Amino acid sequence: MNPPIITLLTDFGLRDGYVASMKGVILAICPDAKLVDISHLIAPRDARSGAYVLYTSYGFFPQGTIHLAVIDPGVGTERGAIAIRTSSYFFVGPDNGLFSFVLKEPGCETRRLENRQFWKCQLSNTFHGRDIFAPVAAHIARGANFDVLGPSCDPVLAQWGEPIVGKGAVEGEVIHIDHFGNAIINVMRETLEKQGPAEKWTIRAGKTVIDSIRATYGRVAAGKELALTGSSGFIEIAINHGNAASELGLRPGTRVTFQLSKS
Amino acid sequence: MNPPIITLLTDFGLRDGYVASMKGVILAICPDAKLVDISHLIAPRDARSGAYVLYTSYGFFPQGTIHLAVIDPGVGTERGAIAIRTSSYFFVGPDNGLFSFVLKEPGCETRRLENRQFWKCQLSNTFHGRDIFAPVAAHIARGANFDVLGPSCDPVLAQWGEPIVGKGAVEGEVIHIDHFGNAIINVMRETLEKQGPAEKWTIRAGKTVIDSIRATYGRVAAGKELALTGSSGFIEIAINHGNAASELGLRPGTRVTFQLSKS
Amino acid sequence: MNPPIITLLTDFGLRDGYVASMKGVILAICPDAKLVDISHLIAPRDARSGAYVLYTSYGFFPQGTIHLAVIDPGVGTERGAIAIRTSSYFFVGPDNGLFSFVLKEPGCETRRLENRQFWKCQLSNTFHGRDIFAPVAAHIARGANFDVLGPSCDPVLAQWGEPIVGKGAVEGEVIHIDHFGNAIINVMRETLEKQGPAEKWTIRAGKTVIDSIRATYGRVAAGKELALTGSSGFIEIAINHGNAASELGLRPGTRVTFQLSKS
Repeated sequence: MNPPIITLLTDFGLRDGYVASMKGVILAICPDAKLVDISHLIAPRDARSGAYVLYTSYGFFPQGTIHLAVIDPGVGTERGAIAIRTSSYFFVGPDNGLFSFVLKEPGCETRRLENRQFWKCQLSNTFHGRDIFAPVAAHIARGANFDVLGPSCDPVLAQWGEPIVGKGAVEGEVIHIDHFGNAIINVMRETLEKQGPAEKWTIRAGKTVIDSIRATYGRVAAGKELALTGSSGFIEIAINHGNAASELGLRPGTRVTFQLSKS
Repeated sequence: MNPPIITLLTDFGLRDGYVASMKGVILAICPDAKLVDISHLIAPRDARSGAYVLYTSYGFFPQGTIHLAVIDPGVGTERGAIAIRTSSYFFVGPDNGLFSFVLKEPGCETRRLENRQFWKCQLSNTFHGRDIFAPVAAHIARGANFDVLGPSCDPVLAQWGEPIVGKGAVEGEVIHIDHFGNAIINVMRETLEKQGPAEKWTIRAGKTVIDSIRATYGRVAAGKELALTGSSGFIEIAINHGNAASELGLRPGTRVTFQLSKS
Repeated sequence: MNPPIITLLTDFGLRDGYVASMKGVILAICPDAKLVDISHLIAPRDARSGAYVLYTSYGFFPQGTIHLAVIDPGVGTERGAIAIRTSSYFFVGPDNGLFSFVLKEPGCETRRLENRQFWKCQLSNTFHGRDIFAPVAAHIARGANFDVLGPSCDPVLAQWGEPIVGKGAVEGEVIHIDHFGNAIINVMRETLEKQGPAEKWTIRAGKTVIDSIRATYGRVAAGKELALTGSSGFIEIAINHGNAASELGLRPGTRVTFQLSKS
């Protein structure tokens, strides 16, 4: 049998021992777990960006993978802690919208983590990633019964999870700036194509106007902005061989509108 | 039997092949070793910060874990190379104070690495992490006898390892700035509580005066500074939803004084 | 038998899900693969820097390791995709000079990746790392026959792969700035020593003149620049306890000349 895989996504950064503490806790419970980092450089407290990065990567992992995601500005307050089971995966983390894109999958089940048997014995006020989420993920990896983690519940769905879709017009927002400065928008190509072909939509973001959605980077001159479909299906604004976010002044939350041309 | 775990902590950064070279060397000696990064973004040459990050994470790993730590400004000079055995773990690295917090554990044994049988055959002048420390850690993982690594020795203990404790007054320093800009101080909550409850101590760091030590981040308004006990027991200065280090001008080495109020 | 090792080197950064997607794809094909990051912080699109970092680390891994390297500014254009077999290792990535240093090994065989049986079924235009290179590496790890990956071909060799060597004079360039600000030059100590001892060469880079190549960092005063042989045999310019690149204005591509003194 293959060893269980646990992925980790946080905004903890890479300078400290926070992520390693979680890994130590996991390995102490489930020594054969295979640990794979998704990212620990999500912008601090930005569940939106974390949700996007998780969405772009979780589906490539083998069936049964446990995805542990901790972007948790509400730690120590009343926000809930949850585990989700989909047809292929498990997810563990705070109940703050971080799993909004995951929860679009049909047949998700959500449990509110209340069974302290799966937590670390000593609980800190500031680090539930280490004390609740990591041990719960490790116990799932060891085969703990999902149903005993806690009672069923309705998870939080974030506002930025869906764009506003009108007739010939879609309004979304930038949800992530990637390493290359590409600005990813919470609008999928298929959302646009339900109304008309991608190349007939005009995109506006601040002062930037782009009159088509293209297939790949190489199709415009170096230094020129373009819109294209990213590798996960979301529309992104890029500059060929450049940094769109800094050059065009885009950041998470920037409003972006799409308009379908009539001709 | 579970595979041996080796953690890695360095100031080598993530842009180069330095860390990967160490991992290659380890896997060539001990192919089933499980490698876990603690951090490679410790500030260059800051053994103090490395000691803190190691301290916050090493104890969460399973018994028998080997912790390899290389912050080594003295490489190529006369500084010693050591391995330490505690009741639960092994540590390998330069003898420059990096293990000062670890060495507070009772019953530590230290060996000066002199047995070249466990080193890489070809030795560079600039990279003992790859040529001495990594192979020694890998040989320990394969079961090498600790006692033959070299002779017993007294390891270096750093000055910043302990604050100055007076009656109703404690003087320490910032030892680490974490990813969120929290400034961690080399004073543990329990050191303060021996003299009086945490909320009765006033903290001064530069122009900042904080009149109590609180339990969690959420208890002050967003943007306001506070002192709290971090997840590892050290006192830290934070700004709720902000960056204390940059906003208050704190950095490693900043003096911090604690005073017990009389009422 | 030991599990297969796959290393990963990219310019994808650590903020996104790009690297994790590749890892997921690999583990879905070859669940027991051991994944080791070399670096994901290579300067965007800088195959030269990637080639250097790969060169400094690949040879420390056990025989049979598969090195997956993706710095791929030409993705979506006509650049080729290749796999290389040396006497000890496999390499997989774009055919853009990234393997120029590797290809100095005698007896390399190169295949142009054309057999779509080893690719991901659905192919994106922008992410061949995930859709071609990762699955090919995973299939090699599972034992796929190298010869059926595609036809033999002659790989691209980059101009920066070799310095210009004259009588008593060598002209090279900075190929990488490491985490400590050391500037690595595409000239190996052995290239110089064929003509005269290292300490008899004078190095010029911009306004900086250094009159000898030394053995280690500690031999000049703190804050002073020096030239030394790095741990991989290339000459580098450093500042003892300082940052040579920023203080001396060195960056990838900076011309560097070496002159042999006559006395």
